[in-house]
Amino acid sequence: MNLSDIYKPVQKDLDKVERSLEEIADSEFPLLAQLLAHTLKNGGKRIRPALTLLSGKFYVYEPALLIPMAAAIELLHTATLVHDDIVDNSPVRRGKPTVSYTWGENRALLLGDYLFAKAGSLAASTGNLRVIKLFSQTLMTISGGELKQSGVTFDLARAREYYFAWISAKTACLFSTATESGAVLSQSPEDAIAAMRDYGYNLGVAFQIVDDVLDFVGDEDELGKPVGSDLREGTLTLPSIFFAEAYPEDNLIKSVVEKKDADSMALAVEKIRNSPVISECLALASEFCFRARRAIEKLADNSARQSLLELAAHIVERRK
Amino acid sequence: MNLSDIYKPVQKDLDKVERSLEEIADSEFPLLAQLLAHTLKNGGKRIRPALTLLSGKFYVYEPALLIPMAAAIELLHTATLVHDDIVDNSPVRRGKPTVSYTWGENRALLLGDYLFAKAGSLAASTGNLRVIKLFSQTLMTISGGELKQSGVTFDLARAREYYFAWISAKTACLFSTATESGAVLSQSPEDAIAAMRDYGYNLGVAFQIVDDVLDFVGDEDELGKPVGSDLREGTLTLPSIFFAEAYPEDNLIKSVVEKKDADSMALAVEKIRNSPVISECLALASEFCFRARRAIEKLADNSARQSLLELAAHIVERRK
Repeated sequence: MNLSDIYKPVQKDLDKVERSLEEIADSEFPLLAQLLAHTLKNGGKRIRPALTLLSGKFYVYEPALLIPMAAAIELLHTATLVHDDIVDNSPVRRGKPTVSYTWGENRALLLGDYLFAKAGSLAASTGNLRVIKLFSQTLMTISGGELKQSGVTFDLARAREYYFAWISAKTACLFSTATESGAVLSQSPEDAIAAMRDYGYNLGVAFQIVDDVLDFVGDEDELGKPVGSDLREGTLTLPSIFFAEAYPEDNLIKSVVEKKDADSMALAVEKIRNSPVISECLALASEFCFRARRAIEKLADNSARQSLLELAAHIVERRK
Repeated sequence: MNLSDIYKPVQKDLDKVERSLEEIADSEFPLLAQLLAHTLKNGGKRIRPALTLLSGKFYVYEPALLIPMAAAIELLHTATLVHDDIVDNSPVRRGKPTVSYTWGENRALLLGDYLFAKAGSLAASTGNLRVIKLFSQTLMTISGGELKQSGVTFDLARAREYYFAWISAKTACLFSTATESGAVLSQSPEDAIAAMRDYGYNLGVAFQIVDDVLDFVGDEDELGKPVGSDLREGTLTLPSIFFAEAYPEDNLIKSVVEKKDADSMALAVEKIRNSPVISECLALASEFCFRARRAIEKLADNSARQSLLELAAHIVERRK
């Protein structure tokens, strides 16, 4: 099943989210409008705002609150990407030059700040204090997690623990905020809110693991970046960690991370691509998707729940 | 009158703001704690949080709301400084090495994001939607204003207009948010809220003009940075603009901004320091302080109002 089928129960309102993102880009002075257009019309999958809308379909569906909240979630995500591209010195994202590459790091930094503020402003427009607090807490978790990660050095014994803490902060937290805020804004009871949060969190972990696998096995054209980018930048993700754990005598990964020499990198990427760790990572992602599906099994059996169940399957099967 | 006399009516609660900033620095993992301690124990004047507390003294003074809001305002200010130091490539602030200089730009970027989020979280803890919305709008104004400024090239005919738009966004807006939020959180009527906003805005404009004057005539030890830093970095502030306007045949300023050669810079800084434009700038700052004082003349004549009036005088007389 593809994403447009999965999004069907909320497609009309997801289009409104898209239009509200376009309106943000239209309404500012020329330089900012140009930066916003480049950043917001980015061909992203819009999974996070779709999650907010779908999560709002179980009790009182309130488009006037859910649409701005979904847009806020997507803007927060976009802001973190703009800042990540500065931190990672990335020239390309989704096949397009990054803001920092095209307009310089200073403008990318200020654009990210503007997007955070605009996101906060949209979240505030819901008038719901609980989601507003959740929203600022999420940004603290994301930036704090990235800072923590910036201090990590190679330590195989703790690599898995660091990895899960990191992806929990950078991805799963925003996924769970997306689903939890949808549940809160649609007046769900506490057990249903907890179920949606749990779903979002586990889906987010699975999503990030698959992202990190695709970085090794994906198609460069579809990914819009070179294969093995993470490892080439010295970032240890699950495939590299599983590989280093599986072959403790092989110091290849350690030496790639520490010395960053091009030949070892190419060799490591090639070895990992063709090793069984890839399917082990995907099996673990499937396990998190299973937990996500189980979290919502007691919710009303409607088309939104069907979509959320299918999204959990789609996330492991996707190729980009 | 010095600042500690001016702060007297709210000193006890300002100490609580200080302690809540210290607690933020204490409560996190080691790297973040170190960065937060470096950034928050910075010897700043704490004018903005003092403004929030003083502005809350006219109707129902609510320390449980005003203290976190004052801390939020100071954190937002600190976050923008951390990001500004990246943008301006500044090695030193208030006589101490900057975060970006000591720990690198990436960590400074993430620290700034974390501070924005923490600030938003504290603002949200007031539970007051009006100040929450005002708060995110303020960050949009600040980052949008910096972006606008980043696209400005030398144009003497429009320099004054650009300067006032810029300092309005970068300084006056946060001053007025500091005073307006104090008024809102203390249940002030609308006319008193408007008066406090007006006071804060005009005080902020005056404050920035004086800052820009001190950059030329201040003492390097007290400033904690070299004299003439702004112009040396190619930034046109009011003294340079007034100088260029006063001597339209002299292309010194234009050539400094465009060519950035060291000899012209030193000459320009020296010429401006010793020219009448310095006192013209201070006269204009006094005019804005006069407007600030007039804005609050109808408020209750209490010790907080006395402090606000004296702060407006202090701001023009200060030497650092």
